[in-house]
Amino acid sequence: MLAIRLIERKRDGQRIEPGEWRALLGAYVTGHVPDYQMAAFLMAVFLRGLDREETAALTDAMLRSGGALDLRAITAPRIDKHSTGGVGDKVSLVLAPLAASVGIVVPMMSGRGLGHTGGTLDKLDAIPGFRSDLTLAQAHAQLERIGCVLLGQTGEIAPVDKKLYALRDATATVESIPLIAASIMSKKLAEGLTGLVLDVKRGSGSFLQTLERGLELAETMIALGAAHDCPVVALVTAMDRPLGRACGNALETEEAIQALRGEGPADLMEVTYALAAEMMLLGGLSLDRESAIETLTSAVSSGAAAEKFKEIIEAQGGNPAVVDDPALLPQAEAIELFRAARRGFIAQIEPRAVGRGIIALGGGRTTMEGHVNPGVGFVITVKPGDWVEMGEPIASVFARDEAGLRAGADALREAIRIGDEAEPPLALISHRVTAKGVEVYAS
Amino acid sequence: MLAIRLIERKRDGQRIEPGEWRALLGAYVTGHVPDYQMAAFLMAVFLRGLDREETAALTDAMLRSGGALDLRAITAPRIDKHSTGGVGDKVSLVLAPLAASVGIVVPMMSGRGLGHTGGTLDKLDAIPGFRSDLTLAQAHAQLERIGCVLLGQTGEIAPVDKKLYALRDATATVESIPLIAASIMSKKLAEGLTGLVLDVKRGSGSFLQTLERGLELAETMIALGAAHDCPVVALVTAMDRPLGRACGNALETEEAIQALRGEGPADLMEVTYALAAEMMLLGGLSLDRESAIETLTSAVSSGAAAEKFKEIIEAQGGNPAVVDDPALLPQAEAIELFRAARRGFIAQIEPRAVGRGIIALGGGRTTMEGHVNPGVGFVITVKPGDWVEMGEPIASVFARDEAGLRAGADALREAIRIGDEAEPPLALISHRVTAKGVEVYAS
Repeated sequence: MLAIRLIERKRDGQRIEPGEWRALLGAYVTGHVPDYQMAAFLMAVFLRGLDREETAALTDAMLRSGGALDLRAITAPRIDKHSTGGVGDKVSLVLAPLAASVGIVVPMMSGRGLGHTGGTLDKLDAIPGFRSDLTLAQAHAQLERIGCVLLGQTGEIAPVDKKLYALRDATATVESIPLIAASIMSKKLAEGLTGLVLDVKRGSGSFLQTLERGLELAETMIALGAAHDCPVVALVTAMDRPLGRACGNALETEEAIQALRGEGPADLMEVTYALAAEMMLLGGLSLDRESAIETLTSAVSSGAAAEKFKEIIEAQGGNPAVVDDPALLPQAEAIELFRAARRGFIAQIEPRAVGRGIIALGGGRTTMEGHVNPGVGFVITVKPGDWVEMGEPIASVFARDEAGLRAGADALREAIRIGDEAEPPLALISHRVTAKGVEVYAS
Repeated sequence: MLAIRLIERKRDGQRIEPGEWRALLGAYVTGHVPDYQMAAFLMAVFLRGLDREETAALTDAMLRSGGALDLRAITAPRIDKHSTGGVGDKVSLVLAPLAASVGIVVPMMSGRGLGHTGGTLDKLDAIPGFRSDLTLAQAHAQLERIGCVLLGQTGEIAPVDKKLYALRDATATVESIPLIAASIMSKKLAEGLTGLVLDVKRGSGSFLQTLERGLELAETMIALGAAHDCPVVALVTAMDRPLGRACGNALETEEAIQALRGEGPADLMEVTYALAAEMMLLGGLSLDRESAIETLTSAVSSGAAAEKFKEIIEAQGGNPAVVDDPALLPQAEAIELFRAARRGFIAQIEPRAVGRGIIALGGGRTTMEGHVNPGVGFVITVKPGDWVEMGEPIASVFARDEAGLRAGADALREAIRIGDEAEPPLALISHRVTAKGVEVYAS
């Protein structure tokens, strides 16, 4: 009867109290509230919304449904980054070792890719032997020893989140800001953070396509963080084109290694340094962005960041030699250049079309159970606004076979538009959001 | 994938097309769309609403999900009545034989009681041997022979309605006007009607408590009827107190028999004649209400109406002798008078409290699987506004045992309020709604 009363209340736009959130989620995770009642409740939440207190109470109830990392004994700042996801977004692989190399403890929990966006775990899986399925105890030990762990979503943390997410996915209730925020924050808070940096993507390839919705998510997360003593800072970054050049699991891992050596594409370096600088500022390790970026650049040029990545890989069972020799990563069987069909400006590189191309190549998944081929993907060497001549190589397709090469080329033809004029793309980093409000980002 | 797309569209306030309603319900009834997806969809419908065309398409899809009575060979007007339900509402048992006795073909399909409201089938079950679980073929044959059948909801008709209703009941999506209207009309249209009279109850004991919501349902049903060539007329009647004196299954059947003999309580007779007159007007059997009521009064005084009830009972396996000797109906083991605790005006007889009293006596059900004891209930011999002296008998409790007598008296103490002043009750019949609009009912 509890479930019916709560469905009625939320249906009628009334509030759900903290104790009721705990009771509802507890009954759901044990099967005492069936999926169909939770589905009706979630749709009522989607359409009626949750206020700040309800979102905090839901987050808290999800957090309490499982275990957590108790990192209070670690005195260093414990800071993670979360991205709303996009195509070519390999920032986590660069950022986690880089931040750890300058003294931040990074307990990074990531997910797998679904649909057009990739997932950090799939990229890590490309490293031979690498294991992300650690227990909380193992993660804790590794954090104390080397200051960074790259973890999959363990069943120990917020177990109700996994069940709820699957139901939301099947009932068109995913794109609800409070539900998204509670899902992310419950897992992040379980990491025992002292701060969180949020990368909110905007543009056609992003999850929340409008700036307004992105800012709403940022503000909701910032409020949730404040309620749990975990300050959150968000940067709004562009996802109207892929980030960096490589799109595809092993290709992105290789590009992340290049970036750790200071040889990454300019846009990837700029976003990574900006997010890492925010982590340093949150952790009190720098007083201003300029000195933070100076410290970070040194960690790259000295080799400390790449060295930290080797340590992490080795600690998690992987072969650290990939950092020096990326050819040890899975390779595609067939590679072909993709050339411009006409001369003109690169008018658009549509991230969703690129993402669909990776799925067509076998490198992405459409259901959570799907297997991915790590070696396939694209390296796109142009950016919107670039001038190209007809026949000029602008990308490479990495595939399993001839059929894959054709499917990949078809996807790039759909994704990359060449025209007589080019609209200016979105600013790479456009806004910074803190508890004080939204400001335009001045890079 | 169909279900997700339709959930998304309705969630976002968009329309669902006729072919999509058919596909969705077809997939639901076969189990290809799971309950949790339908639950999310129903909540979206509840909160976003359906327009007239969507409600008609949903009704049509539900109607097509099962069989129907093809009564086109019967040239007489085929008219049924539907009531939104209340306490003491035994109108169907009087109205069906009465209307049939003046030449209307009445294929009446009824349900069982749930919660505080009784159900016609439970009242019919009180007649020894009576069977309401006929097939459509049996119902058809009986209609041709004697012009009336009192039928339970067979699985042959609108089978998706039963599955949907159970889900709505568990997900707080019952009180949606378009869903209610589609559920009622799909079943009524399957009866092959040429007209329908709707009894919309208002007041504290009714399902839709405000006049506004009652009129909204009436207007929705009238529009649905027009779209399916079945004119609908609605009367708004009072349910701020029980209708008639008897409340409880066998007691109500006995009162219905009294009414068929012209010995029923005034309010029951007035509502029954008014609804039957609307059936005659819809069927073209009378030109005005006065002459209709004259014909109906004659059918009662001549014994034709009671005789028709005997025919129906006999055709459906029951003992027709109950009409002449109601003592053949199930009797309560214990009977006790209930007396006024003070002198004053009867200020209120709260129908929901009376309904709860019947459940407490074992004569109602709280789940669809519950068994009911037919003999128990109340006969309340006063009406709001009556003056009573302290100690005066105002009701009788019919129970299984001493404990039942006490529970029944407790319920009456809660239900019947005696005060120094009495607010005037709602007009027994207040409004008449047709395709032309709403008019105040002048009796």
